[in-house]
Amino acid sequence: MSNPVFGLLPGDRALVVAPHPDDETIGPGGTIARLAAEGVEVHVLCVTVRTAKMYGSESVTSVRAEEFAKACAALGVTDSVIAWPDETGELDICNRQRALVDLIERHEQVSLATVRPKALFIPSAGGFHQDHQAVHRAAFAAARMHGPGGKPTPSIVLGYRGVEDRWSALSEEWWAHVDTSAHWETKQEALRAYGTQMRASGPRSVEQVRLIDAAAGSSLAVDHAETFVPYRLAY
Amino acid sequence: MSNPVFGLLPGDRALVVAPHPDDETIGPGGTIARLAAEGVEVHVLCVTVRTAKMYGSESVTSVRAEEFAKACAALGVTDSVIAWPDETGELDICNRQRALVDLIERHEQVSLATVRPKALFIPSAGGFHQDHQAVHRAAFAAARMHGPGGKPTPSIVLGYRGVEDRWSALSEEWWAHVDTSAHWETKQEALRAYGTQMRASGPRSVEQVRLIDAAAGSSLAVDHAETFVPYRLAY
Amino acid sequence: MSNPVFGLLPGDRALVVAPHPDDETIGPGGTIARLAAEGVEVHVLCVTVRTAKMYGSESVTSVRAEEFAKACAALGVTDSVIAWPDETGELDICNRQRALVDLIERHEQVSLATVRPKALFIPSAGGFHQDHQAVHRAAFAAARMHGPGGKPTPSIVLGYRGVEDRWSALSEEWWAHVDTSAHWETKQEALRAYGTQMRASGPRSVEQVRLIDAAAGSSLAVDHAETFVPYRLAY
Amino acid sequence: MSNPVFGLLPGDRALVVAPHPDDETIGPGGTIARLAAEGVEVHVLCVTVRTAKMYGSESVTSVRAEEFAKACAALGVTDSVIAWPDETGELDICNRQRALVDLIERHEQVSLATVRPKALFIPSAGGFHQDHQAVHRAAFAAARMHGPGGKPTPSIVLGYRGVEDRWSALSEEWWAHVDTSAHWETKQEALRAYGTQMRASGPRSVEQVRLIDAAAGSSLAVDHAETFVPYRLAY
Amino acid sequence: MSNPVFGLLPGDRALVVAPHPDDETIGPGGTIARLAAEGVEVHVLCVTVRTAKMYGSESVTSVRAEEFAKACAALGVTDSVIAWPDETGELDICNRQRALVDLIERHEQVSLATVRPKALFIPSAGGFHQDHQAVHRAAFAAARMHGPGGKPTPSIVLGYRGVEDRWSALSEEWWAHVDTSAHWETKQEALRAYGTQMRASGPRSVEQVRLIDAAAGSSLAVDHAETFVPYRLAY
Amino acid sequence: MSNPVFGLLPGDRALVVAPHPDDETIGPGGTIARLAAEGVEVHVLCVTVRTAKMYGSESVTSVRAEEFAKACAALGVTDSVIAWPDETGELDICNRQRALVDLIERHEQVSLATVRPKALFIPSAGGFHQDHQAVHRAAFAAARMHGPGGKPTPSIVLGYRGVEDRWSALSEEWWAHVDTSAHWETKQEALRAYGTQMRASGPRSVEQVRLIDAAAGSSLAVDHAETFVPYRLAY
Repeated sequence: MSNPVFGLLPGDRALVVAPHPDDETIGPGGTIARLAAEGVEVHVLCVTVRTAKMYGSESVTSVRAEEFAKACAALGVTDSVIAWPDETGELDICNRQRALVDLIERHEQVSLATVRPKALFIPSAGGFHQDHQAVHRAAFAAARMHGPGGKPTPSIVLGYRGVEDRWSALSEEWWAHVDTSAHWETKQEALRAYGTQMRASGPRSVEQVRLIDAAAGSSLAVDHAETFVPYRLAY
Repeated sequence: MSNPVFGLLPGDRALVVAPHPDDETIGPGGTIARLAAEGVEVHVLCVTVRTAKMYGSESVTSVRAEEFAKACAALGVTDSVIAWPDETGELDICNRQRALVDLIERHEQVSLATVRPKALFIPSAGGFHQDHQAVHRAAFAAARMHGPGGKPTPSIVLGYRGVEDRWSALSEEWWAHVDTSAHWETKQEALRAYGTQMRASGPRSVEQVRLIDAAAGSSLAVDHAETFVPYRLAY
Repeated sequence: MSNPVFGLLPGDRALVVAPHPDDETIGPGGTIARLAAEGVEVHVLCVTVRTAKMYGSESVTSVRAEEFAKACAALGVTDSVIAWPDETGELDICNRQRALVDLIERHEQVSLATVRPKALFIPSAGGFHQDHQAVHRAAFAAARMHGPGGKPTPSIVLGYRGVEDRWSALSEEWWAHVDTSAHWETKQEALRAYGTQMRASGPRSVEQVRLIDAAAGSSLAVDHAETFVPYRLAY
Repeated sequence: MSNPVFGLLPGDRALVVAPHPDDETIGPGGTIARLAAEGVEVHVLCVTVRTAKMYGSESVTSVRAEEFAKACAALGVTDSVIAWPDETGELDICNRQRALVDLIERHEQVSLATVRPKALFIPSAGGFHQDHQAVHRAAFAAARMHGPGGKPTPSIVLGYRGVEDRWSALSEEWWAHVDTSAHWETKQEALRAYGTQMRASGPRSVEQVRLIDAAAGSSLAVDHAETFVPYRLAY
Repeated sequence: MSNPVFGLLPGDRALVVAPHPDDETIGPGGTIARLAAEGVEVHVLCVTVRTAKMYGSESVTSVRAEEFAKACAALGVTDSVIAWPDETGELDICNRQRALVDLIERHEQVSLATVRPKALFIPSAGGFHQDHQAVHRAAFAAARMHGPGGKPTPSIVLGYRGVEDRWSALSEEWWAHVDTSAHWETKQEALRAYGTQMRASGPRSVEQVRLIDAAAGSSLAVDHAETFVPYRLAY
Repeated sequence: MSNPVFGLLPGDRALVVAPHPDDETIGPGGTIARLAAEGVEVHVLCVTVRTAKMYGSESVTSVRAEEFAKACAALGVTDSVIAWPDETGELDICNRQRALVDLIERHEQVSLATVRPKALFIPSAGGFHQDHQAVHRAAFAAARMHGPGGKPTPSIVLGYRGVEDRWSALSEEWWAHVDTSAHWETKQEALRAYGTQMRASGPRSVEQVRLIDAAAGSSLAVDHAETFVPYRLAY
């Protein structure tokens, strides 16, 4: 399994779209770290974060932005942004479907237009969270194929898993796997950057993420792996 | 989660159909142990075992029958049988579909007719192994609903997972879960009874089965669990 | 089929989430009646009802609230509420996805937080009605598994059918069945409480609901039954 | 709903492939009767019947052949045949996949080659019975599209339901419906021709078939209907 | 394949619901032309069009309305309307689900209530575009079956394909096919009416639409065809 | 789209399993040619060919073996074999499921054991032909993941399409695409090597294969492409 991951080569670019800070780490964090280590530039577009009480502790926008920056740095991300920070907690991205598509296509700092990525990582369709579903639909639409001279089209589109996404009534085909054994330590470091989000036990604990990655690894006969839905693989 | 498992009560009976010895342990072993501990009688009908070289070591029919008996004893199984021991290695159950249905319906020692179970455990549809598919189809057919006065019909039919069944192109709905944390030790003991089958590492190791059960448990916030496809739950 | 329904025991609690009054009766009404008769407390959270002209007659919020109360009483419901009565007809719950999740998680009278139910009944995913889809998605999200010390998580989550939901392009697995033969009379009484909603013939007639329940029963060899999608069964 | 059924016109021909006698009546019997009444020629190819003890009574090949002839006559079938009568009970059609395809393509009396039908009715894919699955696969293969000058290809291919086929783990899209209200009496007469097969109650009773057709009708707002999986509709 | 298309007869009416101008032509244009040529009245309800910069050129509402009228005339459409022209570009139909259902049910010029069609053509479920998904859901809901005396219900409901809809994560069953070989020239003329929308090459070129129709034709052994998802076929 | 195809590098090996001669060319022929041109060794294991009258002309085993050799040579295949030539026409591979798995795992000349390929190409699951289904199932089983020290496991497993496989009732996810524009001429040459199999028109004509590849290409905005089901992509 020493072939280039999905055929991506040093100098190629990947774009990861995350609904909220930590989604990029919990799902594809090990793969980001491996790609970065292999010379692929990874950019992360995080859609939003809001100030809210959540899981017993407070989630302050500015604190979460710092956590996000720290996690991205740990993973070796080239560039990252939180597009719509929401200090009042009133933004409901489910009702902004058209604007979401535009954001992913054309955000001035991190988007399909500016990064022109070979590979695009998006939340998988089966996540139960309404924001993940909205971002999935928008990113999927943005990833459609364009004709010559049209908008940039990523050759590779992969759906990643959210922390609680095994709770889903939608079966998807998790056919793509990346051996992230050598990058588990890095992923763990990035997870720990999310002090306000991760818990000591339960679905949002480092231990649970490790267990999921270990189980994914076991089906490849390696220590840790991440799995993806391969929406498009074009060569 | 202290409710009776699938509503089964002490004195109720369950029938587990296993293609080969060890399938009853690797998949639903913890659930068998829990049911037995809660007073439900569990019977196991194992279809066949053959003398063959396999995974580097020899698999002798008589040795495997002993392993099976030992594992069933560890799990607390009431009665068990290997219906078609195959010493010559020439039996291909894929070509005996009709006989397989008859076997599951009417074997004189352990079958739907003799056990008259409330619950039936069968291999899930998505297993890649041709024998598992054949047994799934036959057991599913045998489990059809009969009218009053007709053959006995199990109210509950559950599909269990094989050790390598994550390798499947068929999505099934793994919606039923049993917390087997208190019975992992027992399942481990039964797994270890299969000296000729289990390996030190890889898909057929105790460690890998533990990892799968731990990952299933993590989605319930418990230590270990087993998951099932709930083909029928009738109350 | 005398086992406890889904393993629920006297004293256990169930929560039914209904988009509008009558959904709780048309779909799972017989099951509610059976559970209540077997000592399980059933609570009903109805999301909304609006004043509107509908099917030729007028639907007045206050009248429908009375019908709802009467139907719930007939079924033996412990507590029930209509959360968002909409007298102006301007509420579009499709655009309030986040608020809907909060409602189901935390409504002060009838919600996951106050009832802490073992079983949760929600509209199935395949209903064609936009409000049913919105409530399905919100209730499904609210039902996700939480870690120890987190929000209450129902062990059992079932999707019920709407009156016209055979008109669906989404296949779901209707694998759970409840024999409601002994409770058909009660369900019929509750249906008749909906004077403004039920028609003399066609999809919204008592006769059609009876036919659907009788057909469901026939596949179990009983007189009447209700069927469900078993999204989660955890023991 | 007075349009020609699936666009079939007087003088057009239909071929129904039935695994055993009675399958043509229980599933699409009302539709056969309606087509015949509207001037469409219907031919029935029944694959096999065997002498066997079944459901408590004996099933003698010659008796069942008479029942089949009587039922076909009642429905208005133009021509019918039982291709492989099996007096010894040793034929296992599951192991004769290639011969089955040949049979459906080229049987000298009733087949695609001799009837050259516009419409082909086959068992749906989801039947649990191994013989129904074998006939489905073979008929589906035989129905493939041929080029100009090649074998005859039916423009319309429909899957019909078996009596117990709601017991299925395979979801199919039952999108085609035929109002058979005016032909229920005829179907009932054909059902009654099967004296050795039909029971007084349970899945194989006239009453249960009526209930299924009535429930199918209710979703069209008519008295009785039959539903089909529309594998191909080419115009 | 000279049977009446889906059984529709001269004088019958069909309604096509299109999210934006050109959807009615790119997807089912050849079928519209064939139906019109065979005496079936076809009405087109186009939901919206907005003034926007798109694919490099400007899309002016009034210009697009002219293109739409010209294309409909070429196809032989009886009546057509753009319901919600959006000159400011601020309308987001995704947030108007309830109003969309009302529009399709009751628009005063072209709707289910005024046309009372036998056949309804709607965007298929799998389109990636958020507007197509919203119109699909609303049209599907509007097409539900009503009882006698209720709203008009189309007997036939077909999903058509959008130009870029092969980019979809939702598998649908494209089981219905219409031979449009004799009407390709007409479809091409209608496509060319969309001067601001069609491109010289790529997904939105006449050549690409031709290729898709030719490939669809090849699976029927004809020159050109269009394929549909048959959501309902009731006779 | 100049990245290495599926990440395969010069010197890597691929194994193509074909039920009969010509399946390797009609489905993945352009991809074989491209891989070979890029330095990947491609080996082809063809299961069987029989002497039979077919499509009006005679199919002689020895002639077809020559055609196969010629086509493989044109595509740049390194090594190829027909494992079970069947001169009597009596072999029914559907009844030899276990032997088929063994063949693909251990054939002495071209198999998983001898080639130890990075990538494995197998018939997709949805083919209607009984032989293709049998080979799919066997090859899928043979491709399961083995532990360290076990049998060789291909990291990449792809399902390819048969010439008539759009006639299928099984939806699969055709998410992988290879731009074969530069290799269409080579594929055409290989197709033409099959003098006894290809027809002047219809599904088995060079023109129809070209149309399918052109339509597949159009969704990538290239001239020709081949599409695959990505059962496993492990890196």
